[in-house]
Amino acid sequence: MVELQERLESIRTAELEKCLRRLGPVTADQRQALELLTTQIVNKILHYPILRLKESADEPQERESLRQTIRKIFGLR
Amino acid sequence: MVELQERLESIRTAELEKCLRRLGPVTADQRQALELLTTQIVNKILHYPILRLKESADEPQERESLRQTIRKIFGLR
Repeated sequence: MVELQERLESIRTAELEKCLRRLGPVTADQRQALELLTTQIVNKILHYPILRLKESADEPQERESLRQTIRKIFGLR
Repeated sequence: MVELQERLESIRTAELEKCLRRLGPVTADQRQALELLTTQIVNKILHYPILRLKESADEPQERESLRQTIRKIFGLR
């Protein structure tokens, strides 16, 4: 579900950039901690939807219906 | 969709705690920036699903079907 991953990734990077502007200078380690924190949150949120899609891999109709529903729920084209 | 909000909130706080343990001591301002960053990410991700549910408020069948689908996709009971 590439579009959903991209949507969440763009939310993640936009909010991280805003946060870094508010924080001012951070060390490389702090920056890395923020990247890890936000990436882990997004990955955990995506865990179940991606699992559902994998489970439906050999049922094309269910898979397509799941994809369309995910698109609808997340306002993807 | 209280369950979905709770699920995402528990992911957010768990990852934030892990991050704070890695970072060591942070100032109150830094802590607040991390709370804001992670809350904004979760709120933006929830924006569309919550909008869809609101849109379906006066169509009970569609609303129920949407709720069930969201539960299924996110592995909620």
